[in-house]
Amino acid sequence: MEKRVAVLQGDGIGPEVTEAAVRVLEVIARRFNHTFHFNYGSIGGEAIDKFNNPLPEETIALCESSDAVLLGAVGGPKWDQNPSELRPEKGLLAIRKHFDLFANLRPIKAVPSLLHASPLKEEIVRDVDMMIVRELTGGIYFGQPSRKTDTSAVDTLVYTREEIERIVEKAFELARLRKGKVTSVDKANVLESSKLWREVVEEKRKSYPDIEVEHQLVDSAAMKLITNPAAFDVVVTENMFGDILSDEASVITGSLGLLPSASVRSDGFGLYEPVHGSAPDVAGKGVANPAAAILSAAMMLRYSFGMEAEAAAIEKAVNTVFEDGHFTADLSGNLDRVHSTNEWTEKVIGE
Amino acid sequence: MEKRVAVLQGDGIGPEVTEAAVRVLEVIARRFNHTFHFNYGSIGGEAIDKFNNPLPEETIALCESSDAVLLGAVGGPKWDQNPSELRPEKGLLAIRKHFDLFANLRPIKAVPSLLHASPLKEEIVRDVDMMIVRELTGGIYFGQPSRKTDTSAVDTLVYTREEIERIVEKAFELARLRKGKVTSVDKANVLESSKLWREVVEEKRKSYPDIEVEHQLVDSAAMKLITNPAAFDVVVTENMFGDILSDEASVITGSLGLLPSASVRSDGFGLYEPVHGSAPDVAGKGVANPAAAILSAAMMLRYSFGMEAEAAAIEKAVNTVFEDGHFTADLSGNLDRVHSTNEWTEKVIGE
Ligand SMILES: CC(C)[C@H](C(=O)O)[C@@H](O)C(=O)O
Ligand SMILES: CC(C)[C@H](C(=O)O)[C@@H](O)C(=O)O
Repeated sequence: MEKRVAVLQGDGIGPEVTEAAVRVLEVIARRFNHTFHFNYGSIGGEAIDKFNNPLPEETIALCESSDAVLLGAVGGPKWDQNPSELRPEKGLLAIRKHFDLFANLRPIKAVPSLLHASPLKEEIVRDVDMMIVRELTGGIYFGQPSRKTDTSAVDTLVYTREEIERIVEKAFELARLRKGKVTSVDKANVLESSKLWREVVEEKRKSYPDIEVEHQLVDSAAMKLITNPAAFDVVVTENMFGDILSDEASVITGSLGLLPSASVRSDGFGLYEPVHGSAPDVAGKGVANPAAAILSAAMMLRYSFGMEAEAAAIEKAVNTVFEDGHFTADLSGNLDRVHSTNEWTEKVIGE
Repeated sequence: MEKRVAVLQGDGIGPEVTEAAVRVLEVIARRFNHTFHFNYGSIGGEAIDKFNNPLPEETIALCESSDAVLLGAVGGPKWDQNPSELRPEKGLLAIRKHFDLFANLRPIKAVPSLLHASPLKEEIVRDVDMMIVRELTGGIYFGQPSRKTDTSAVDTLVYTREEIERIVEKAFELARLRKGKVTSVDKANVLESSKLWREVVEEKRKSYPDIEVEHQLVDSAAMKLITNPAAFDVVVTENMFGDILSDEASVITGSLGLLPSASVRSDGFGLYEPVHGSAPDVAGKGVANPAAAILSAAMMLRYSFGMEAEAAAIEKAVNTVFEDGHFTADLSGNLDRVHSTNEWTEKVIGE
């Protein structure tokens, strides 16, 4: 197959880790007989510096002519004082909305060789294997009115039935390929939008009789992610709850530095990025952990290109390298062989 | 002093644990020469059964003629299918709003003898000692419009500057009596209401130059509560974020069953309730853990009656009983002496 990939390296360690991912993808292309065309564009802080726009028209055009987008990270202290329209994260919000990337997929799985780094007790996180499905283009992030005066401010949480239906369907479809359980998280005892959300889930479940469904209030979900995270399979929720819960869940296994994410729509187009941020403090030193970017590339192969075997090959290689005790500095805990970004990427390529 | 206390026992284990708290308060009254008048009223499910109203007029009148309210818990499967106006939790929301109880105080402190019950590693939670200050009568819980049709739904997050000012002031005042640090949690990179919130915090801090202030985004706060909870002192945030974060924080030390809460306004009137719910499965068996209700009564003495020595006497007694290895069934882990609600309350009274 021939595929066009837009690479938006972004800020901080973004360039280093996306480069590692591109190298791994090139090896996959050779091995499985594909052609990947990589074209580079700007987003976030570097785009503000070059184009005075966190998501320049050039970048939108590049993505429109691509089959998927690989993103590094955006943000850094340099732009922290900027007015809100010139903040790196506006680029992220804008690209999600422009391309209607309504489904944010965040898999979180315990890595046996890294459990020592978890803040939770090993027996609690050992069996964690969940996928958080966050609605990404609706809710209070985009609802109108959204305004502020000197004396008051208002934000609006809106959802249409269609917006809820498509994300809930996505969750059911994913559950079928996993452990067959969906936990829908809402605040139906307080919010009208959550009542509609719960209604849609109840309706959709009729088309998925094979899937176990549970409803959980967001406050109690925030507790259970700590007390019994292994009980979750697919968790589906609206934009703001998903923002909070997916970040909470990202630290429980101790492997935040390894977590990939996908933001997709229904036709297969999607944006893939590591969950970790731009880490400006270690940028440019060649020590960043490229695992999350490499695993994001694997998600791209799976969800945008339908290349399951290729995705699995990358995931297996990453796992093997970890099990063999090879870590970058962030994970080594001084005990193991410490590798630079490049060395570690070579290990993965070797596998 | 002479004080009138409205006791709203509510549902499930509510009656058992509030009775234990009342007994402890009676001992405090004798020992410190106070007179407490306890008057009982209905709320939640039992109020729905008796009055077809989760917060009957009689209860409002009773609370209006009292100096403080001691509440057990509301809710249970019996009322789970009720229409939303006849749900037990509506009683809670209504009493908060009616009495303008805008400040919800949730202290969370590690108990050395109970750290084994924490889902987190001991070294991470050992030094936890924080107070979450949640705005309780504004935001998306009460903003209008809030409505739903078959095809869409909307909720509204509104805050006025005054609403933010009073809760932020409360947080600064509390920080002065504690470790001198305030973490303000918002989502200022997305929400207009959060921008106003941050503005108010920046303004108020000028009046509290002795207090260290930090701003944290809600998603990163949800992570830090797990990775480094001991770094927090006072955490102040809006209603919905506070709901999620305070429940998340309540499980980190393994002592959810012991956590008290206060919901107060500026004139000293307040409502005090354990954080744990109504636990219908163990209700009526005499095994419920009364510690959280007893510690809520201590908060009532401190915040509504200005009785610091009396509050501290209760807290010390509870601590001593735990350190001596006396637990109710929920905490004993089969290792220690297990006590019934009454026996355990006697131990506290003994101290
Ligand atoms: C940067 C910010 C706007 C963004 C969000 O809240 O969606 C980030 O936290 C995320 O989760 O990708
Ligand atoms: C019962 C519910 C409405 C309530 C809330 O969300 O405030 C509860 O979760 C709480 O935190 O006291």
